[in-house]
Amino acid sequence: MELFEAIHTRRSIRQYQEKEVPADLIKKILAAAMMAPSTADARTWHFIIVTDIDKKNKIKNVHPYVGMITKAPLGILICGDITKEKFQGFWPQDCSAAMQNLLLAAHASGLGAVWTGIYPVEERVLKFKEIFNLPEHIIPLGLAVMGWPAQSVRADERYTDNLVHYNTWKGTK
Amino acid sequence: MELFEAIHTRRSIRQYQEKEVPADLIKKILAAAMMAPSTADARTWHFIIVTDIDKKNKIKNVHPYVGMITKAPLGILICGDITKEKFQGFWPQDCSAAMQNLLLAAHASGLGAVWTGIYPVEERVLKFKEIFNLPEHIIPLGLAVMGWPAQSVRADERYTDNLVHYNTWKGTK
Repeated sequence: MELFEAIHTRRSIRQYQEKEVPADLIKKILAAAMMAPSTADARTWHFIIVTDIDKKNKIKNVHPYVGMITKAPLGILICGDITKEKFQGFWPQDCSAAMQNLLLAAHASGLGAVWTGIYPVEERVLKFKEIFNLPEHIIPLGLAVMGWPAQSVRADERYTDNLVHYNTWKGTK
Repeated sequence: MELFEAIHTRRSIRQYQEKEVPADLIKKILAAAMMAPSTADARTWHFIIVTDIDKKNKIKNVHPYVGMITKAPLGILICGDITKEKFQGFWPQDCSAAMQNLLLAAHASGLGAVWTGIYPVEERVLKFKEIFNLPEHIIPLGLAVMGWPAQSVRADERYTDNLVHYNTWKGTK
């Protein structure tokens, strides 16, 4: 799929077919995620593939907006490793860039996905750390729930002139 | 350009030709950025197009890694509007997803760009707020410096098996 088409037609997909996602396709999507830029090329990310139903049920119980995980073939949890940072505090940006690559790669492969937020909601961070036995220095950023789409969502254009400024904040004139 | 090709061949470009970037192409790239997902669809982003040489010089003086801005046709500063957040603290993730779309869109258009970090380095945030007259609730996240590339950078693959885990953190076994 062409880049601009992928960007303009991708939407959050929350309903999935009962059909597995092949391992080689998951790897292709992860490889795309890992090509993201990161601060000082620190590549602070880790990826946890979630297919186990017990883990899915636990996730459902600790996050208010991730109920669909139990009906999805998989989730991919993106975590940041703060010990890898060369400049402190940038890991959420690194992991968000990786997440966006991942979502685009899924969409261009015919999959549907949705980014559900964890960090910086402290309670969610702690619960996900518990569920996945994450060490102290590994922080869960967000979970992409993914599968073959069982819904289609219209992708309206979002361009808004009012959000574009030239050389200074226009509201200050 | 095909999505996976764009993702796998994009690299940070810091040297540019002395050649303008047409306004309609800038708009196309901004439209791609604004198609990013955002937490509860809050679209917390703003974009400041920087072409003015005085602004570029000021930026160069306050950021250690952005000297190339004075030789680039433009920069695009992405800022978050914290008053638009439906869930507090997620705006850097929204703006990072928009930044990643922007970088991919630039690359697929034949441009080169590099994401330079501002937030959460407090001193940089304050200086950029001053330079661009940003109100209290608008926080600069990062600056994309952009132009027609005058260098080519080889895009090595970054996939690493060791960063992939299945259903639990593998280090805890």
